Amino acid sequence: MSVKDFSNDSLELHRKHKGKISVRSKIPVNTKDDLSTVYSPGVAAPCEAIAANPEDVYTYTIKGNTVAVVSDGSAVLGLGNIGALAAIPVMEGKAMLFKKFAGIDAFPICLVSQEAEEIIRTVRNIAPVFGGINLEDIAAPHCFIVEEQLQDLGIPVFHDDQHGTAVVVLAALINAARVLNKNLNDMKVVINGAGAAGISIARLLKGDGLKRARIKIRNVVLCDRHGIVSSRRDDLNEFKRAALRYTNNDNQSGTVFDALRGADVFVGVSQADLLKAADIRTMAKDAIVLALANPNPEIMPEEAYKGGAAIVGTGRSDLPNQVNNVLGFPGIFRGALDARAPRITMEMQLAAAIAIASCVKQPHREYVIPSAFDKSVARKVAKAVFKAAKKRH
Amino acid sequence: MSVKDFSNDSLELHRKHKGKISVRSKIPVNTKDDLSTVYSPGVAAPCEAIAANPEDVYTYTIKGNTVAVVSDGSAVLGLGNIGALAAIPVMEGKAMLFKKFAGIDAFPICLVSQEAEEIIRTVRNIAPVFGGINLEDIAAPHCFIVEEQLQDLGIPVFHDDQHGTAVVVLAALINAARVLNKNLNDMKVVINGAGAAGISIARLLKGDGLKRARIKIRNVVLCDRHGIVSSRRDDLNEFKRAALRYTNNDNQSGTVFDALRGADVFVGVSQADLLKAADIRTMAKDAIVLALANPNPEIMPEEAYKGGAAIVGTGRSDLPNQVNNVLGFPGIFRGALDARAPRITMEMQLAAAIAIASCVKQPHREYVIPSAFDKSVARKVAKAVFKAAKKRH
Repeated sequence: MSVKDFSNDSLELHRKHKGKISVRSKIPVNTKDDLSTVYSPGVAAPCEAIAANPEDVYTYTIKGNTVAVVSDGSAVLGLGNIGALAAIPVMEGKAMLFKKFAGIDAFPICLVSQEAEEIIRTVRNIAPVFGGINLEDIAAPHCFIVEEQLQDLGIPVFHDDQHGTAVVVLAALINAARVLNKNLNDMKVVINGAGAAGISIARLLKGDGLKRARIKIRNVVLCDRHGIVSSRRDDLNEFKRAALRYTNNDNQSGTVFDALRGADVFVGVSQADLLKAADIRTMAKDAIVLALANPNPEIMPEEAYKGGAAIVGTGRSDLPNQVNNVLGFPGIFRGALDARAPRITMEMQLAAAIAIASCVKQPHREYVIPSAFDKSVARKVAKAVFKAAKKRH
Repeated sequence: MSVKDFSNDSLELHRKHKGKISVRSKIPVNTKDDLSTVYSPGVAAPCEAIAANPEDVYTYTIKGNTVAVVSDGSAVLGLGNIGALAAIPVMEGKAMLFKKFAGIDAFPICLVSQEAEEIIRTVRNIAPVFGGINLEDIAAPHCFIVEEQLQDLGIPVFHDDQHGTAVVVLAALINAARVLNKNLNDMKVVINGAGAAGISIARLLKGDGLKRARIKIRNVVLCDRHGIVSSRRDDLNEFKRAALRYTNNDNQSGTVFDALRGADVFVGVSQADLLKAADIRTMAKDAIVLALANPNPEIMPEEAYKGGAAIVGTGRSDLPNQVNNVLGFPGIFRGALDARAPRITMEMQLAAAIAIASCVKQPHREYVIPSAFDKSVARKVAKAVFKAAKKRH
């Protein structure tokens, strides 16, 4: 299977348009009266209304439909720490997808500082214009601190690489289990990569933090580059240590290859070309492989099938079963903004995953996740997230 | 003369559209290949290009055409310190004008903090996406510190309430002198209001900081609410004290009314209804009155004419001779962005003022400033500013 290279097309497109988004007026300004209405002196009226009643900011300004896509460029795609300037094309792309799939106005904010405290401070300071904050491509472990400390901001702060990925992975597994007639909760899942995405996937699959978890997978084993995250290791950071509360039930030790033996599911959020067909062969019958390293997966589908995998997904839009965050974040933010939710809870994430899975009416091996262009997805996700948000109150 | 009230129309318009700007994609995303080109995996190519050569950020992203409209809401219109949320409608309006008059994509950034150090820190941190920073409605004196300390950012940082206003005031005075057959450089100008705008107007009218000043007005007297800013006062802040270097040649003391006696020009950037016809009567023959307090001027035109004023301008779009910043900032930023200027110098400001004045082919008493809708203005200003910027290098 050959994979198309989009590099040249992409460079040309970016060069031709000098970036991918622009700001436009919703209202024409053609006369002096127009100017007096949208700007001085008329604009004083909405300003005074908001000064008197801050909630009116949702009535008279863009806030209720506007999201900041915030990155420090420390973990961009599979490219690593390329910094704020080089991260801009990704954040612009993200803003396009917010608009395309959920009608949300998103704007890229790329930060010079890669210190958690400074990122938190800056986001707090620029928050007034935004109805939500989408954290993006911020490396672990400081992404955990940033997200956690910003939960009191009063608007949803959501790290898409953590929770967005977790939501779509869970949606894929719900349908994969359905196709294979397996019970998801009975499975053993091995996650390779214990960074932003890995830990968050583990948490959602275990239903950790939920009062009533309809989905609670028996055994989730988290691995990092030193192998299985277990209580016997003394090199774990506080976030991996905290994950021991809900992962690795059997306190297994060893490498990711040890973990894979007999496992039902492999979820890779790590590095290209980690696995070979032989490794898949050690897994349980009808293994599910979600190899999500970007742009090149941990194992290519044809190689995984050679090893006996039943269902294979990747992160690529040019391969079947794309585990694509675009299925999650637009609807999740749409629902959260519409509900004026102060944060995006685990319940809202679970509701989103179930809604995404439900969009595939007749799942089969090469179609466990809806297409990125299925327009019903964002709408259904938004509705489910809105409902879950309102239930909370 | 009755003045139309735009409050209700404005409230209704803002409510109906939920704010005035939106973010749109420049490029359609309809197929999997589109998605692979604008986003993952294709987007990795421009990211890598920029990581290798940071200057490429101007080739592949929105940076070169994007300006942040930054405010802390501490001095909004004539409304005072109404805070970040209530400032949003003004900043959205400003973004509309950037687009309408110069095709620039501007985005509002409203800050919670009103501390100079924190504003500076935040602007530095969010700078990567922006090709320029327009500071707006930040109160004196911290606006001076913010603007000055950000001049090393590598992109233009321009406080429109200071320099934008100064540029348009100078343009108006150039043509007013022409209409009245007076020599601008021989005049005595009284400026009431020694905040952001007042000090900056004084500085530009005196040609301070210019190597070769074609315009250098004889005597500019600055007043604040305690009267004339003079060396005999011991209550001046450091910024007013610094302005003594180029203002109040005769070291006059007293009130603004004392200063007005015999003056050729009054420029008000202070408060509504400060002056009456009798005060104008004490000025020199054919006085020029620019009463710019917003939304209500220091004196209404009919009252000023009663006192013998020859030419009257205000800040209002519903009255003649509107000293409107929109004549300045769009073209100034357009020229600065196109020249990739690292800052907006006094030379560039002077060039902008002369360009604005030149747009009025046959000035008369009610037409010393081009209409806000004269499309040639921004283009001519941009050209002049571009030229002045290139001369610097």
